[in-house]
Amino acid sequence: MATERTKDWLVDVRRDLHRRPEPGWCEFYTTARIVEKLEQMPVAVTLGPDLLDADARQGVPDSATLSEWLNRARETDADPDLLDQMEGGLTGALATLDRGDGPTIALRVDIDGLPRTESADDGHHPTAEGFRSVHDGHMHACGHDAHTAIGLGVLQTVAESDFEGTLKVVFQPAEEVIGGGRPVAEGGHLNDVDALFAVHIGLTYPTGTVVGGFSDFLAVAHLDMEFTGEGSHAGAHPNGGRNAVQAMATAVENMYGIARHTDGRTRVNAGRVGGGTASNIIPEEAFIEGEVRGGTTELREYMRRRVTQVCESAASMHDCSVSIEEGAEAPSAESDEELVDQIARAADANERVDSIVRRDEFRGSEDATFLMKRVQERGGLATYLGIGTDHPGGHHSATFDVDERSLPIGVEVISDAIRSTARDLSE
Amino acid sequence: MATERTKDWLVDVRRDLHRRPEPGWCEFYTTARIVEKLEQMPVAVTLGPDLLDADARQGVPDSATLSEWLNRARETDADPDLLDQMEGGLTGALATLDRGDGPTIALRVDIDGLPRTESADDGHHPTAEGFRSVHDGHMHACGHDAHTAIGLGVLQTVAESDFEGTLKVVFQPAEEVIGGGRPVAEGGHLNDVDALFAVHIGLTYPTGTVVGGFSDFLAVAHLDMEFTGEGSHAGAHPNGGRNAVQAMATAVENMYGIARHTDGRTRVNAGRVGGGTASNIIPEEAFIEGEVRGGTTELREYMRRRVTQVCESAASMHDCSVSIEEGAEAPSAESDEELVDQIARAADANERVDSIVRRDEFRGSEDATFLMKRVQERGGLATYLGIGTDHPGGHHSATFDVDERSLPIGVEVISDAIRSTARDLSE
Amino acid sequence: MATERTKDWLVDVRRDLHRRPEPGWCEFYTTARIVEKLEQMPVAVTLGPDLLDADARQGVPDSATLSEWLNRARETDADPDLLDQMEGGLTGALATLDRGDGPTIALRVDIDGLPRTESADDGHHPTAEGFRSVHDGHMHACGHDAHTAIGLGVLQTVAESDFEGTLKVVFQPAEEVIGGGRPVAEGGHLNDVDALFAVHIGLTYPTGTVVGGFSDFLAVAHLDMEFTGEGSHAGAHPNGGRNAVQAMATAVENMYGIARHTDGRTRVNAGRVGGGTASNIIPEEAFIEGEVRGGTTELREYMRRRVTQVCESAASMHDCSVSIEEGAEAPSAESDEELVDQIARAADANERVDSIVRRDEFRGSEDATFLMKRVQERGGLATYLGIGTDHPGGHHSATFDVDERSLPIGVEVISDAIRSTARDLSE
Amino acid sequence: MATERTKDWLVDVRRDLHRRPEPGWCEFYTTARIVEKLEQMPVAVTLGPDLLDADARQGVPDSATLSEWLNRARETDADPDLLDQMEGGLTGALATLDRGDGPTIALRVDIDGLPRTESADDGHHPTAEGFRSVHDGHMHACGHDAHTAIGLGVLQTVAESDFEGTLKVVFQPAEEVIGGGRPVAEGGHLNDVDALFAVHIGLTYPTGTVVGGFSDFLAVAHLDMEFTGEGSHAGAHPNGGRNAVQAMATAVENMYGIARHTDGRTRVNAGRVGGGTASNIIPEEAFIEGEVRGGTTELREYMRRRVTQVCESAASMHDCSVSIEEGAEAPSAESDEELVDQIARAADANERVDSIVRRDEFRGSEDATFLMKRVQERGGLATYLGIGTDHPGGHHSATFDVDERSLPIGVEVISDAIRSTARDLSE
Repeated sequence: MATERTKDWLVDVRRDLHRRPEPGWCEFYTTARIVEKLEQMPVAVTLGPDLLDADARQGVPDSATLSEWLNRARETDADPDLLDQMEGGLTGALATLDRGDGPTIALRVDIDGLPRTESADDGHHPTAEGFRSVHDGHMHACGHDAHTAIGLGVLQTVAESDFEGTLKVVFQPAEEVIGGGRPVAEGGHLNDVDALFAVHIGLTYPTGTVVGGFSDFLAVAHLDMEFTGEGSHAGAHPNGGRNAVQAMATAVENMYGIARHTDGRTRVNAGRVGGGTASNIIPEEAFIEGEVRGGTTELREYMRRRVTQVCESAASMHDCSVSIEEGAEAPSAESDEELVDQIARAADANERVDSIVRRDEFRGSEDATFLMKRVQERGGLATYLGIGTDHPGGHHSATFDVDERSLPIGVEVISDAIRSTARDLSE
Repeated sequence: MATERTKDWLVDVRRDLHRRPEPGWCEFYTTARIVEKLEQMPVAVTLGPDLLDADARQGVPDSATLSEWLNRARETDADPDLLDQMEGGLTGALATLDRGDGPTIALRVDIDGLPRTESADDGHHPTAEGFRSVHDGHMHACGHDAHTAIGLGVLQTVAESDFEGTLKVVFQPAEEVIGGGRPVAEGGHLNDVDALFAVHIGLTYPTGTVVGGFSDFLAVAHLDMEFTGEGSHAGAHPNGGRNAVQAMATAVENMYGIARHTDGRTRVNAGRVGGGTASNIIPEEAFIEGEVRGGTTELREYMRRRVTQVCESAASMHDCSVSIEEGAEAPSAESDEELVDQIARAADANERVDSIVRRDEFRGSEDATFLMKRVQERGGLATYLGIGTDHPGGHHSATFDVDERSLPIGVEVISDAIRSTARDLSE
Repeated sequence: MATERTKDWLVDVRRDLHRRPEPGWCEFYTTARIVEKLEQMPVAVTLGPDLLDADARQGVPDSATLSEWLNRARETDADPDLLDQMEGGLTGALATLDRGDGPTIALRVDIDGLPRTESADDGHHPTAEGFRSVHDGHMHACGHDAHTAIGLGVLQTVAESDFEGTLKVVFQPAEEVIGGGRPVAEGGHLNDVDALFAVHIGLTYPTGTVVGGFSDFLAVAHLDMEFTGEGSHAGAHPNGGRNAVQAMATAVENMYGIARHTDGRTRVNAGRVGGGTASNIIPEEAFIEGEVRGGTTELREYMRRRVTQVCESAASMHDCSVSIEEGAEAPSAESDEELVDQIARAADANERVDSIVRRDEFRGSEDATFLMKRVQERGGLATYLGIGTDHPGGHHSATFDVDERSLPIGVEVISDAIRSTARDLSE
Repeated sequence: MATERTKDWLVDVRRDLHRRPEPGWCEFYTTARIVEKLEQMPVAVTLGPDLLDADARQGVPDSATLSEWLNRARETDADPDLLDQMEGGLTGALATLDRGDGPTIALRVDIDGLPRTESADDGHHPTAEGFRSVHDGHMHACGHDAHTAIGLGVLQTVAESDFEGTLKVVFQPAEEVIGGGRPVAEGGHLNDVDALFAVHIGLTYPTGTVVGGFSDFLAVAHLDMEFTGEGSHAGAHPNGGRNAVQAMATAVENMYGIARHTDGRTRVNAGRVGGGTASNIIPEEAFIEGEVRGGTTELREYMRRRVTQVCESAASMHDCSVSIEEGAEAPSAESDEELVDQIARAADANERVDSIVRRDEFRGSEDATFLMKRVQERGGLATYLGIGTDHPGGHHSATFDVDERSLPIGVEVISDAIRSTARDLSE
């Protein structure tokens, strides 16, 4: 049972991280802070460079962006040596608690923020309480600050228990760009894992509810399209150019119009677009940073094929060329019944939990699926569980916040499930 | 007759300016350099703050941009005192040569660069000769560096002649954003002008050709559209957002599709667009920086009305709102026959001129029209003349360059026309 | 067990109907032929005028079309008196077999064809065998000819059995335009029904498979949009018109681009469009005959609201007006477990059946849902069952055909299920 | 001077034709009526089969349409023998008045109607006076009925004068589909013409105004696009089809969005479109009947190239194919100054003419340009002149009508110009 001391500690950790949200592969301050906490625990720490298969990273920003965020971190009290080691975006960490013989259990939490401006409204709790994001345009709008705090709390709680075996907690970077799951999976540190838990807070569940396992993750793929035409003076020679913005707009309109599929859910988004240089020049360049998803990998590939076709045709329609770079992607995955059981039993035994949902459909995508599949392919088990939390604004919105009462619930339920899973697997 | 000394001087001035192109209202270095040259001539100098009606400025960039360019200028050897006076974007200058009784003649040249990356190809003359733009993404791609050099050359030439009367040379900022014409006109320094010459180099004419006067300027207006929707997670709640990028794309497609007009030329351009924040978020914001033009003011207003309607409908179609800010604009204007005659006669007498076009249609827009109309409304005369120049790349293209042999031609023809006009008007 | 005699009879009936497909509310020949068959059975016949609530009909064609098809029927050997009674599109029939006390069981089959040209290829069985459609542009491409034959076969089989109670077989018109379900439900003849079976042949199932009950019918609504602008000479006065085709095209593009919904399946189609009169006239009129669907009624309403918004905005964008007429619609419905059981047991006992699927998701829409809901609301049971059939071309395609071996399977399974249901409900 | 008798006769002829407007190549009744009038004059008549190069015809409707209109003509009192000779759409006639030695002068009038429903409003003069079109959906909305009457009146007037030489009046079919000009030119009957007059009534000029010659005809080309995709059930298999209507809509949107051209006027129109068969089927077929125009042939070709590219890309974007059939086209042409003079002088001498415009820009297209170019290429002269007429509704609108007082003005001015031209050319 988590004490009030634990709760206060979790809240402090979470708020500290909340004030400094960092985008994927730029979690320099966040990782340093995690490592500082880990150094106070009986665990071995593996930092990003040794945790990740660096070449398998997806969605790494350009070096100017990486430098900018590293410099921001250097302006804090974070350990400069740690920061230096992460140069180039080798963020994230793994903590290993070795308690002798017994199964290897893993917990995965993600640590990155989102490119979104946090509400400055007084009614927004982080603003009122003074821990609103100090990084304009960036925000922990999906609760990864809470995930990180829970990961640290679970380590501490399990370390203080009679747990036998090995516990690995992965503090994974770059989930929002589905960038960190693959390099962690490829890094090899999960190859010996017998049971993997991954956790998300909130979603559609209030404080007091626990979800044993999610299924039906949407497979996802990012697609970056660059349209190239030719500039011209818009007044004097409107026909002299080849209009890349017109090509892009045609592509956007028709991407959203790709036919729904009889076999299940499909998604498409032109999430960030731009083009042109000045109002009086026919735009020479334009881009779409987009994504496609599907209820299955096949459905995602249907969307990818069609988006590609739409963009190529839109380019040729306006005499432009287009280059399409395939970005980060993640597969679908399922939660194993045995671990769903473990979570459900732990939740059932917890007095702060008032509602248990065994399984639900996950409506989005997650690169935790890379970790789940890696463990499952090697004979281990995996579940992606949910810890409900009241949140006034929706996920990814400017007013998102978590109910901090859910932090100790998460720590307790997951710690208990880890311990009982270790016991059951030892038998 | 311009000597070789003059030509070398003109080339030096032009190349110095070419290396440091500055966007509209950021011509800090450029103006400082002009003033330094003027200080060596028998003229009175009026700097931007006293030249312009600051409130009438159009297309002024945000203060961060202004500061950035001011700081860039401060890193050069430009006079820091001069730079300080222009803070906030009060660039440009007026030189007044007072030679006693006689008519007041004015010459207008524009001084700003374009947001365009200059070719780094060895075949590009400025690159080969080492005076390529040092400001990445910015370039003198329309010859305003040459205009400025001609303006200075004319002053020097007329000052050394038997000219009687007053000559005012306006070094106007921010032509490319049609931003400087109105504040110069409203500033009052042209109210006493009897004859105004404005000059453009190149266009479709080779070195050795002179155009007496242009007509049929396209009336132009800038329009900035901001679309606002609502963000949402693109995978989990695709229907939860209101897609501002989709609204923008629909607007772009349909803006270009506005019906041609039976009464004459119309133009529309969505020159710079953007929107959204990340590939997995339904875009909440999008924008279009566009423009409309017309062969007459009525045709421009037809386009403006239709673009407004298109954008408002595109917004409502996608459940978004749109705010439309009307930006800079300029009217149409005509060149007066008397001054066309003066240019044609001066050209005819010049041995370097091998072809004279009395009049041509100007296919673009120009905020010199504000100055022309101001002078004409008060009973003065005006012409917008052309000095041909060979140029390998088109205006506004990355390989634009001027044939420097055209600089002394421009100085000679304009100086001679100014002198003969002064004589004729005195009679 | 159906004899070979029965099979030949079923094939004859089906082929006769196949040759004369008639669109919704124009099934004059079809209904007359059905009634002729019924007159040879011990049943009471209720013709369209007494079966239907005429005002509740949806999708009734204009009177010229009704007359044209009535005249075509008059050119056959169909009973002219019967045809006269159906004037105005009061087609369809109900056969009632009264076998004394006992429950009332109903079977619903649909009878209309589709506006599609049947393949004339020799490889197409109806062409090879000489029963290809004689009505160009019309075809039984969805198996309603087979449904009708099965309905007649079931009546005959049950009439010859020891069945006790009442059997009502509804030969429903206008299913393809989701037009006949509501007027049959409102007509009142199902108010006393204890168990309703509705049947569809084929779908994704081969000959020998039987499906006990379908669920998840898509709710559907038809929408007719008429755009009105203004004509003008396209060469001389391109701006003089208000282009209704441009408005329509914008609407089409954006209808398909309506955001997918997190709660389930959505559909949209601009199935038939048109506009304009001549290549040199700016189009004054345009139309879309479209439809929306949803996995629930709420989802359909989401789509309807968005399509309406898209069309209204597209019209205003192009200075046009639009009138939107809401056409036929149908709700969702579920099959009852008890009747699914009855079908599964009957199928299990049938030696020609080699595969049984208890339940499946129905991927389209059906106005049988009106009948199912009517019966269920009054305490009765309903199921919508499937009889597999091999079909070379997809439903609604030019090469669709049914495997006639599936006809007796349908007759046997349904007849057996009706008889056992009657027995079970009597207990 | 035309007498009142002549005017009444002209009005009778015009109203008779007005009641029976016939589309291009279907002018069976119209031609028969013309020939009946010619048979009362001292002229030789050449009917369509001998007048036209049949293979050079453009825009010929399908044989069912031709038959339908021929049958309509057969229901009138038109000479059945004449009708038989025109079978297949060989309409139109040439009348030759041979008055011995002297130059050969030609007049061209066009005779076809438009696919447009005439206003049934009492305020519409033809309705009030009882000569409204009897052919629903067809109308003389461009004054060709008046042209024909003028052509007959000129023949009569010149025949009664002292004219010496040869006068050929061409009654040309299918102008509205720019279909008849080429086959008349290729037919050879104009090869010996020294001076050609072509006439249009109305345009922007009121009764009493005469225009000596038009210039700047827009070159034009018709383009028929057929998009082919694949049908599918819109609810069950939305992804199973390839949506031809979506391809067509994308093409329409982007056709109108083709960049304006710096060199002059461009035009594009998707004048008639359609597609699909039923609201619940993904559309398999769609079409656009469109046209492009340009102020020069080069500009038309620019538009044709871009429309082709847009349609091909729109098809490939939606996995469809497109076939593009190039339809009728016509070049640009200029009026010769000598004949403009002849018309201006004749108009000046006419007391009913109160305003003379020597030249104007023709804002549309005309296949008279084929005839003009043929004559000019062989050394002859040509002009396309205008006879003003008050008209309440615009050309091609439902309320178009001509002021019948303009008929004798046209006859007089043209007859006088023909006679004086013949005299001048003889000298």
